[in-house]
Amino acid sequence: MPRVAFLGLGAIGTPMARHLARPEHDLVIWNRTATRATEFAAQPSVQGHVRVATTPADAARDRDVVVTCLPVSSDVESLLDGPDGLLATLAPGAVLVDCTSGDPATSRRMAARLAERGVGFLDAPVSGGVSGAEQGALTVMVGGDEGVLTQVRPVIECFGKRIVHCGAIGAGDALKAVNNALLAMHIWGTAEGLAALEKAGVRSDIALDVINTSSGRSNASMNLFPERVLTRAFPRTFRLALLDKDVGIAADIAREQKIVAPLLQLTAELFRQAHRELGEEADHVEAVQVVERLADTTIGGRGDRTTKPS
Amino acid sequence: MPRVAFLGLGAIGTPMARHLARPEHDLVIWNRTATRATEFAAQPSVQGHVRVATTPADAARDRDVVVTCLPVSSDVESLLDGPDGLLATLAPGAVLVDCTSGDPATSRRMAARLAERGVGFLDAPVSGGVSGAEQGALTVMVGGDEGVLTQVRPVIECFGKRIVHCGAIGAGDALKAVNNALLAMHIWGTAEGLAALEKAGVRSDIALDVINTSSGRSNASMNLFPERVLTRAFPRTFRLALLDKDVGIAADIAREQKIVAPLLQLTAELFRQAHRELGEEADHVEAVQVVERLADTTIGGRGDRTTKPS
Amino acid sequence: MPRVAFLGLGAIGTPMARHLARPEHDLVIWNRTATRATEFAAQPSVQGHVRVATTPADAARDRDVVVTCLPVSSDVESLLDGPDGLLATLAPGAVLVDCTSGDPATSRRMAARLAERGVGFLDAPVSGGVSGAEQGALTVMVGGDEGVLTQVRPVIECFGKRIVHCGAIGAGDALKAVNNALLAMHIWGTAEGLAALEKAGVRSDIALDVINTSSGRSNASMNLFPERVLTRAFPRTFRLALLDKDVGIAADIAREQKIVAPLLQLTAELFRQAHRELGEEADHVEAVQVVERLADTTIGGRGDRTTKPS
Amino acid sequence: MPRVAFLGLGAIGTPMARHLARPEHDLVIWNRTATRATEFAAQPSVQGHVRVATTPADAARDRDVVVTCLPVSSDVESLLDGPDGLLATLAPGAVLVDCTSGDPATSRRMAARLAERGVGFLDAPVSGGVSGAEQGALTVMVGGDEGVLTQVRPVIECFGKRIVHCGAIGAGDALKAVNNALLAMHIWGTAEGLAALEKAGVRSDIALDVINTSSGRSNASMNLFPERVLTRAFPRTFRLALLDKDVGIAADIAREQKIVAPLLQLTAELFRQAHRELGEEADHVEAVQVVERLADTTIGGRGDRTTKPS
Repeated sequence: MPRVAFLGLGAIGTPMARHLARPEHDLVIWNRTATRATEFAAQPSVQGHVRVATTPADAARDRDVVVTCLPVSSDVESLLDGPDGLLATLAPGAVLVDCTSGDPATSRRMAARLAERGVGFLDAPVSGGVSGAEQGALTVMVGGDEGVLTQVRPVIECFGKRIVHCGAIGAGDALKAVNNALLAMHIWGTAEGLAALEKAGVRSDIALDVINTSSGRSNASMNLFPERVLTRAFPRTFRLALLDKDVGIAADIAREQKIVAPLLQLTAELFRQAHRELGEEADHVEAVQVVERLADTTIGGRGDRTTKPS
Repeated sequence: MPRVAFLGLGAIGTPMARHLARPEHDLVIWNRTATRATEFAAQPSVQGHVRVATTPADAARDRDVVVTCLPVSSDVESLLDGPDGLLATLAPGAVLVDCTSGDPATSRRMAARLAERGVGFLDAPVSGGVSGAEQGALTVMVGGDEGVLTQVRPVIECFGKRIVHCGAIGAGDALKAVNNALLAMHIWGTAEGLAALEKAGVRSDIALDVINTSSGRSNASMNLFPERVLTRAFPRTFRLALLDKDVGIAADIAREQKIVAPLLQLTAELFRQAHRELGEEADHVEAVQVVERLADTTIGGRGDRTTKPS
Repeated sequence: MPRVAFLGLGAIGTPMARHLARPEHDLVIWNRTATRATEFAAQPSVQGHVRVATTPADAARDRDVVVTCLPVSSDVESLLDGPDGLLATLAPGAVLVDCTSGDPATSRRMAARLAERGVGFLDAPVSGGVSGAEQGALTVMVGGDEGVLTQVRPVIECFGKRIVHCGAIGAGDALKAVNNALLAMHIWGTAEGLAALEKAGVRSDIALDVINTSSGRSNASMNLFPERVLTRAFPRTFRLALLDKDVGIAADIAREQKIVAPLLQLTAELFRQAHRELGEEADHVEAVQVVERLADTTIGGRGDRTTKPS
Repeated sequence: MPRVAFLGLGAIGTPMARHLARPEHDLVIWNRTATRATEFAAQPSVQGHVRVATTPADAARDRDVVVTCLPVSSDVESLLDGPDGLLATLAPGAVLVDCTSGDPATSRRMAARLAERGVGFLDAPVSGGVSGAEQGALTVMVGGDEGVLTQVRPVIECFGKRIVHCGAIGAGDALKAVNNALLAMHIWGTAEGLAALEKAGVRSDIALDVINTSSGRSNASMNLFPERVLTRAFPRTFRLALLDKDVGIAADIAREQKIVAPLLQLTAELFRQAHRELGEEADHVEAVQVVERLADTTIGGRGDRTTKPS
């Protein structure tokens, strides 16, 4: 049975770690803010199965698999070095499974450094959100060696329902970044379209009703706009700062691959702008408010509105 | 019972007209290429119910409702004038229901001219494609007076399952144009993303499998790419030239409404380019091939590929 | 000798009118805010030569040439109708010379209406700024009939040093709009480049010194940035709102002509945004401050800087 | 007196080397295609002063200053390693002056590696073109340590009239890239504007006459369009492939610095497209032909045109 460590108890990481907290894994956890790790280990459901490590090095000692889930690739890379770093204790044959929505270049660099020590690496970003993580039903996009994936698949299956081998190191990162760039493009583009319609006298709730049974629909128009924009709820579930980072990764891949990708590049600029304007804590859907401000209109949200049957 | 005329027997118009060919409508049809009208009237299912008119004026004589379905608004506008034009015979109290995917400015101009004669006007573009038209299950986006809509609703219900009153004259055109602009944006953006992934070593079939269960999905990624791009089938169902026109209408509305809409405007430029490069007969999804050419790659389509279970 | 009227005593119009205030012109002036006209007529240099009209109709009575210089074409169009409008008194054979930086569509519409009365029309926007106007050294871009231009050339020569016949009605507007769109693009693009350099550690004064002797130079980099941006002076000489309008006209022409013009279209979006953010009174060069804000940097402006000889 | 080596006898490099071919420099040259070096050394003007090296290592032996001028940074980086590489013979205290239009990241990497051996590095891209190089009148944009610049300044002064210290390592590259990105933007934007005007009936020669005395002028409009586009000459003086590379560097700097720079990013996409369409040998001004093709028009070039005095 593989001994497992988990580093990074964020909104997604915490429920992932819960699925790994089985006696046979002898789970060790670490988090930069230590109290979150201590609280996690004290929960009745996992109590006794989970040890809190004091450093990344401490967490990785004697582990077969180390799973990381941090905001950005450079956060993971910064855990590698120094006396407290992962490289100090990771043993040959161990595997680092990085579930961060990372960038391929950093993943390749980490993989190369780990390979020098005989340690495997997979980039393995996930999709499915908090609820997917809680249900152990994430999609996991894996880049790296298939043999390594076979080796650690039982561990990944604890939190992932769908495990997709995407290609070489960085392929998981690339696919995750492109998926999120499309999400971003659809949010912004739909906002532009609905803002134009509002100003032209077409109510956004009516417009969405039609679009969502027509060819212009997307996950953004079907879920995010009705639930979060029309209601003006804008819950904070996924930070705009992180989506900006993801779109930037996708745009960088396009540039690196010498693709002509004007829509991707422009989307990167727009989310950079929204991130700059709305700050670090804003949710990704709040980007719609930048479109609204520049259009001098509001998409839905007028309480007196009722969709008339027509 | 309203007496009805139908003008414009194209791919969508023909099945729409079939639903209107009921004895009580005393249907008169007209088409610029007369043979298509003659053939239509000779079909066993409608024989005896349908008269072929020689001119628009002839078609509109004594009609309560005239339905038009042509490529662009200016085609409809050009049918109004002259001794053979609609205005020569349309009587006060009649209504012109224009199912063309039109532009609001021309619709408003036509509505104003018809109003001078006491003739009503609705812009009423449809969505649902050929199969929706055949099943009489189109969505109809209506702009114009609600009373006029109430008056002609039984006629529209012959081909429309969902009839949505969107607002004043031009509102139906506007909504249709924005829906189609989003479709266009999603096609192009998804192509950019998949092309970048292909060059980065991620197969498009795998990428689409993941995207289509993740947040970046859209009608384009879920239907058009698997059925038409991965297969390299590119059937010709909806002309790129018409989608270019629709995106242009949406971009013009955004500009007219003084909206800052960079993604919409850029999408208009890209489809203009694709239209210019691929010509009048290309299908709208063939725009993907422009992205592929500029990326020097192909999205899917390699026959030896099988999605490995993973 | 032609009898002349001048309507629109703005920053450019006032010095233009001064050059027309010659005894032989029997100049009549009109301005929406009447006090400005009264003050103008009371100046010693023109006193006795100039009559203040109470309405556009009053100004145009018995005139051979009426010169207009207003913010936008629709301002001129709104002066045509009604009992106080120009059409009430303009006589066959007269010519309206519109020096507004107008749009071709409105100019064509006005020309057609005037032609019905036998009145000539030229669109004749000017460049050269306030100082060019004061020196009677403007460049005048003329659209319309060459015979009409020949007829009124002596009047235009009073304020224009260079009179360029550009083509049919609207050609002058089009050229002026494109010139200004290039100005706008160069301002924004240079700001982006200098902002990136500042953040990369290259001082803007040094960068401009090099660029201005290299291939990337433009009127913007050679004049506007050294005089107005590095100094942080940002004098208000030409309103951003008007430049936004001009870029929009150029973008509309490109769209109407079915040109693929992504840079022009994007520039229109950016100046729309800047106009929205900075309001009606901001100068066109203040658009640079939007770039700076979104880059979180300042282009030059640090008082302690001295270009070191190097 | 410093002993000097020069590597890279291209269009710019060759006249630069000629200025360095003085007896006191004991000049050694190297070029990948050796015949070009042999021919250079056989010229009467330099005969006897110049030795042809067989490898980069051979060229750098005993040299105080090694000047490189190659297409891209990676070309220079590839000369560093191996038994024939520069690092094999460059001695502590020597300086590598890289006049390539390079990218800051590679320059920093090379500088760091050279510093380990005690060898200095300056990025020192030049502007002024072939004629500037021939006259020894180039502008040299230098990034790196000022002390190192002082040390090698006499060598740089042989070919540079204006030597500008821009900042730390990479600053010269950054400034050169931004200058060239502005050049690219001005070429493309001016082409868009002139194409729109042509289609709207305004001749490009007339348009350029006006723009070049107005606010929209740039080096592109004043020099490149009259000399190369209106004449349809399109001489091949600076490869589009290299300008594409430069714009890409500028766009990467903007992205790295987290600048919102939509015009720069879009310009990078457009030149990538033009490079893809026109191939490796096209001149940078030929990008105009892509704009023309997508606009279905030609900018000037009709032989029967004469600018009418007006």
